[in-house]
Amino acid sequence: MRIVAKEEGKVSDAVVRRLPRYYRYVRELMRNGVTRVSSAELSKRMGLTASQIRQDFNCFGGFGQQGYGYNVEELYEQLTRILGLDEQYNTIIIGAGNIGQAIANYTDFEKDGFILQALFDINPRLIGLAIRGIEIRDIDELGAFVQQHPIDIAIIATPRAKAQEVADMVVRYGIKAIWNFAPVDIVVPSDVVIENVHLSDSLYTLSYKIKELRSDPD
Amino acid sequence: MRIVAKEEGKVSDAVVRRLPRYYRYVRELMRNGVTRVSSAELSKRMGLTASQIRQDFNCFGGFGQQGYGYNVEELYEQLTRILGLDEQYNTIIIGAGNIGQAIANYTDFEKDGFILQALFDINPRLIGLAIRGIEIRDIDELGAFVQQHPIDIAIIATPRAKAQEVADMVVRYGIKAIWNFAPVDIVVPSDVVIENVHLSDSLYTLSYKIKELRSDPD
Repeated sequence: MRIVAKEEGKVSDAVVRRLPRYYRYVRELMRNGVTRVSSAELSKRMGLTASQIRQDFNCFGGFGQQGYGYNVEELYEQLTRILGLDEQYNTIIIGAGNIGQAIANYTDFEKDGFILQALFDINPRLIGLAIRGIEIRDIDELGAFVQQHPIDIAIIATPRAKAQEVADMVVRYGIKAIWNFAPVDIVVPSDVVIENVHLSDSLYTLSYKIKELRSDPD
Repeated sequence: MRIVAKEEGKVSDAVVRRLPRYYRYVRELMRNGVTRVSSAELSKRMGLTASQIRQDFNCFGGFGQQGYGYNVEELYEQLTRILGLDEQYNTIIIGAGNIGQAIANYTDFEKDGFILQALFDINPRLIGLAIRGIEIRDIDELGAFVQQHPIDIAIIATPRAKAQEVADMVVRYGIKAIWNFAPVDIVVPSDVVIENVHLSDSLYTLSYKIKELRSDPD
């Protein structure tokens, strides 16, 4: 059975944001050999009410049974499908500096089906090197490479000033998804999806929380 | 004038999440020599209504004038103070693998006042090395180091399985803020603040968006 979002309407952003956390938690249960989880336990762990969780799952047709809770394996498989993690995605990294290299070295993403095919940079000292056997290529080869290797996701890890230009380039080459690590809000056409990792925003949020904590220590 | 949150109540999480974006945008305007921004322009850029922005700013006493818009320099200074970015924070990184090293190499954070004082690891091959002149130390030295150097933020970049243990340790040593990069939800006491960068959650959200795009290409 294929799980698709109920109704015509889109699932709200808040629900979508919670899905990866559900997935991570349920995967952890699977790994620990747990076969069933009560909605009380799930809600405690997620910091949400059982009713909120039921509502979230109802967006996708609902799963779980009154009085029984959730079958962990079934929940895991459904969340996997909902998140699109039952497929493989070919990725490239553009910008092979610190962040680009760290992502390339992070093999957990491969286990999730995100397969790194190449890195690209403009720096002649990096071009020709390899990370985990995956070559760093000249950015000028990007177009030809993408024609030969269908790429699902471009990971942008360039400095701020280059990010929009690089995004325009990958969109022109037909790549439909961007994972952006550059500290800038990139603009893309409506048929391209983008997800940002703004590390500095996260750090600024933390300093806000520290300030709040210090001004009100209770 | 000191800007503090209006009323006794806490500012909502949604507002707090938007503050870093306001800050980044206004800083960009500053750098480009812009002195004034209309609320129309600001709202266009932020993808929010002018009324929403006014409401956000009202949480902090409000700034900007009817018909004039916002004075960029004033707005920048106030956002800087609100976010606690007018202070310096001493940081340490625990876990000097790919992610830890990438963060250590990312000098933009220093410009924002987050000063890296040391890295810690358990790997004897890493201990004694240095990144930008900052030493990677044995995790066993953590307690003594923190006693001599007051640390505001512990950045956790360990594997998943070690993250909670490390968090417990830094809390025991009196550190009140954690920036967590390990793909796990760490539990901390209520007088400790935490901010997570869950890279895999962001990637899973992207694969969800790709699936949605492919199933409904309009």
